[in-house]
Amino acid sequence: MNAEVLCYLQRVIGEKGRVVRVRSERAFLKTLPQATHALVWNFKEEWFAKAPRLRVLATPAAGREFVPTKGPKGVKVHFGSFHGEIMSETVAAFMLAWRRGFFRLQEKAIASDPWPRAWLSDKCSTVVGTEAVVFGFGNVGRAIGDLLARVGVLVTGVTRHGVYQILAGKRGPRLVGLSTLDETLRRADWVILALPSTTGTDNFLDAKLIRKLPRKCVVINVGRGNAVDEKALYRALKTKRLAGAYLDVRKHEPSATVLESPGYVPELADLPNCVSTPHSAAFDAKYLYLFLMELVRDRCL
Amino acid sequence: MNAEVLCYLQRVIGEKGRVVRVRSERAFLKTLPQATHALVWNFKEEWFAKAPRLRVLATPAAGREFVPTKGPKGVKVHFGSFHGEIMSETVAAFMLAWRRGFFRLQEKAIASDPWPRAWLSDKCSTVVGTEAVVFGFGNVGRAIGDLLARVGVLVTGVTRHGVYQILAGKRGPRLVGLSTLDETLRRADWVILALPSTTGTDNFLDAKLIRKLPRKCVVINVGRGNAVDEKALYRALKTKRLAGAYLDVRKHEPSATVLESPGYVPELADLPNCVSTPHSAAFDAKYLYLFLMELVRDRCL
Repeated sequence: MNAEVLCYLQRVIGEKGRVVRVRSERAFLKTLPQATHALVWNFKEEWFAKAPRLRVLATPAAGREFVPTKGPKGVKVHFGSFHGEIMSETVAAFMLAWRRGFFRLQEKAIASDPWPRAWLSDKCSTVVGTEAVVFGFGNVGRAIGDLLARVGVLVTGVTRHGVYQILAGKRGPRLVGLSTLDETLRRADWVILALPSTTGTDNFLDAKLIRKLPRKCVVINVGRGNAVDEKALYRALKTKRLAGAYLDVRKHEPSATVLESPGYVPELADLPNCVSTPHSAAFDAKYLYLFLMELVRDRCL
Repeated sequence: MNAEVLCYLQRVIGEKGRVVRVRSERAFLKTLPQATHALVWNFKEEWFAKAPRLRVLATPAAGREFVPTKGPKGVKVHFGSFHGEIMSETVAAFMLAWRRGFFRLQEKAIASDPWPRAWLSDKCSTVVGTEAVVFGFGNVGRAIGDLLARVGVLVTGVTRHGVYQILAGKRGPRLVGLSTLDETLRRADWVILALPSTTGTDNFLDAKLIRKLPRKCVVINVGRGNAVDEKALYRALKTKRLAGAYLDVRKHEPSATVLESPGYVPELADLPNCVSTPHSAAFDAKYLYLFLMELVRDRCL
């Protein structure tokens, strides 16, 4: 949290509140016994015992992996829910740029041609009227569905509880009924994963699900990397069994400090029909402000 | 026009009509005296005299450069007007992909890093709530304004006759009044050119107009290349006087057969803050079908 954001936070809580910024786990644990509010990226279950005055534990993250989902009595746990609007723009950006040929222009075969007009002429199309299936339909999935519907995509949202169709401008999602899902998948231009990693979603997109999709389908994962069977996806992209993929998250997210994770296929990102970003789908220069504004709105500060 | 499209055209006009496909100007002129309809990319004014039976002259192009804008009495001249929806997706694709960091990931400085997460973290933002000014507000400009309004951009449209604000979901554009334009330009996040080349628009975006724009502004040209003073734009991008540009059209559109045009700055496309495409903003694999469907709708076939 930089000085500007700290300044904003101090203004939000007023002069009677004291903001302490800590830079290590040790410093955090030393401060925790006095804290009424903790704004964190990580928090271990056992730390609640060291926090007798704690009333609010808040993380900007939407993912449930790094902070206990429930606190002891009297402690409100807050997860960020402002990511949806940002992530919906990331997904729409990819889908539009994919169809309008922006990624094709970076292909090695054409990169040296200053004016590849003829080459590109049969490689562009539009997203309006295409069909998307969104798996995981919490804050993030709903926001994605809402923006896509506004640009003319036909959206079906899937949760553990049912299958919904999103119609722009209507008051809420219309229930379609689970039985039609396979038929919808057979027509899907896009399959979008916005699943949490904590609900048995390992390898959700596997060879079996891929077999239900048409060859034209493009897979998008902006949820968690565990949800994609990378070996199966690599094979499908390599053989053109699927038209393409956009992965913001991976089985293993490369960094010098972590050993390679099981099922991680590094070559996936090198395929010409795979676009990837470094878990940045929810990045926003105003990220921490959005977090603080949400805490104010939800009366956590 | 490939065989599939020809087949579609034959079906549209029925068995009593005869479709002749010609591949050269000579063959075209030989057929012209018998033709009742001519579907063309180019047509010279003097050719009307050789076409006594002509009732419809139609081009898929929206630009007015290659076909006379009016024919003699009894000849209907049709210009394509289906480009707007396609081009609006191109513009939205660029704007979203720009703000979500997709183009930044291609920069040389970072291209070799497989996971430039920290580097990217302060370089992403969203388009919702940003302000765009669209110059040229015919079919294309209006379609762009309409799609952008639906994704949450505040759009001002400018024609020779007035300044309009586009509000999504309202019945039509609301007139704001020319006097506020300079003030709107001072706040603009995007300036979008969708101007024809035939109405005195040479160097419309020049150093003087650039001075009215804020440093954060990104310029987009999907109209005609004549409208941008490329020297002035190059200087502005190089010195960061403007944040970026997306050019689909250029003063000179590179091809082996044409000499370089005056005012063309080839280096423009090499700047890291300039994205360019080869006059492909209206490309669509279904382009000619859209053209034929429009001719049917407008009772030209």
